Amino acid sequence: MSRWNELVATTEDRQREKREIVIRMAGAAFGRNGFYSTTLEDVAKSIGLTKAAIYYYFKNKNEILFECHKLAIQIAQKALEDAESEGRNGFEKLTLTVRNYIVGMTSELNFSILVDVSALKPEERSYVVSFRDKFEARMRSFVEEGIADGSIAPCEPKFAIFAIMGAVSWVPSWYSPAGELTGEQVADVLIGFLSNGLSPRT
Amino acid sequence: MSRWNELVATTEDRQREKREIVIRMAGAAFGRNGFYSTTLEDVAKSIGLTKAAIYYYFKNKNEILFECHKLAIQIAQKALEDAESEGRNGFEKLTLTVRNYIVGMTSELNFSILVDVSALKPEERSYVVSFRDKFEARMRSFVEEGIADGSIAPCEPKFAIFAIMGAVSWVPSWYSPAGELTGEQVADVLIGFLSNGLSPRT
Repeated sequence: MSRWNELVATTEDRQREKREIVIRMAGAAFGRNGFYSTTLEDVAKSIGLTKAAIYYYFKNKNEILFECHKLAIQIAQKALEDAESEGRNGFEKLTLTVRNYIVGMTSELNFSILVDVSALKPEERSYVVSFRDKFEARMRSFVEEGIADGSIAPCEPKFAIFAIMGAVSWVPSWYSPAGELTGEQVADVLIGFLSNGLSPRT
Repeated sequence: MSRWNELVATTEDRQREKREIVIRMAGAAFGRNGFYSTTLEDVAKSIGLTKAAIYYYFKNKNEILFECHKLAIQIAQKALEDAESEGRNGFEKLTLTVRNYIVGMTSELNFSILVDVSALKPEERSYVVSFRDKFEARMRSFVEEGIADGSIAPCEPKFAIFAIMGAVSWVPSWYSPAGELTGEQVADVLIGFLSNGLSPRT
């Protein structure tokens, strides 16, 4: 009986693992080629599975897309929480969030930022959009905290977050798992620009 | 005869004008709702035309998408050229390009950045992608010039451009023609962040 349970647990673990691999590989492909241009056939091929095997785990391509969004939300949520407990001022909380998020996305999801929510079902879309709003609000509060504690220059927090989210959303175009930079290094470079800008330090 | 020519010219002008309006309104809708989720019916309604009237000017939705990309390329090309002749150093050329591009896109195309090229035909896609490469190369050369003339802090030009293009690509999410900021003001705020970053000036 315990052997049976063990076997069942192992099978469940392996199935969860396989599901996760499909989500990650599909997410990377959606990010690279666009959701509509990526077929499940492409995704299956990139993992060495058959299309039928993928249908064992997922109803359709849209279900996988929503799972990708849910994984990205988990990564973002953890990025926020860790930054909040580790950062000693507003600037550190803000930049740690950016760093944790980039490192998480590059390692977990091959960094596909899923900007386009138009392919999601209405209830899925509002789930994703409402998380984004909360995420951005939390980021804004870090900027406000930083302005108050002197670690961030006075600015309009809303616009600071727009500029930062934009720079982060562009990371997929310069990060490649096979490329010259690790996720950590990409995060460092980006945070450097966000912190100091282009102007020469005098 | 001259009256006839006049009439023909006027008709041609008006037809060109109408075509341009369709391109702009469709571009804004594609940017807002995604290309695949936008129907020509939606676009027609937003202009007060019938769908049939749109088919008089364009073969299909894909033709309009490519026209949007071509308009964006014209705006970007002009942004570069004007910046090159007006900027007195690398920093000015770089930030003027960003400013001209944002002002052009907000006024001409309601600022839809068309990141997704997957809906374009292969030859259209390579046209767009090869222009993007040239645009980014020119921007990089402005950064190199700025580092050499002391107007930009030493950095890796490639990564600076990635961060800048990212921030620019996010503008549609904070610019609305009916919103609180003009295109000029959006450009000012963004250039401020790109120049000085978040760190307090000491």
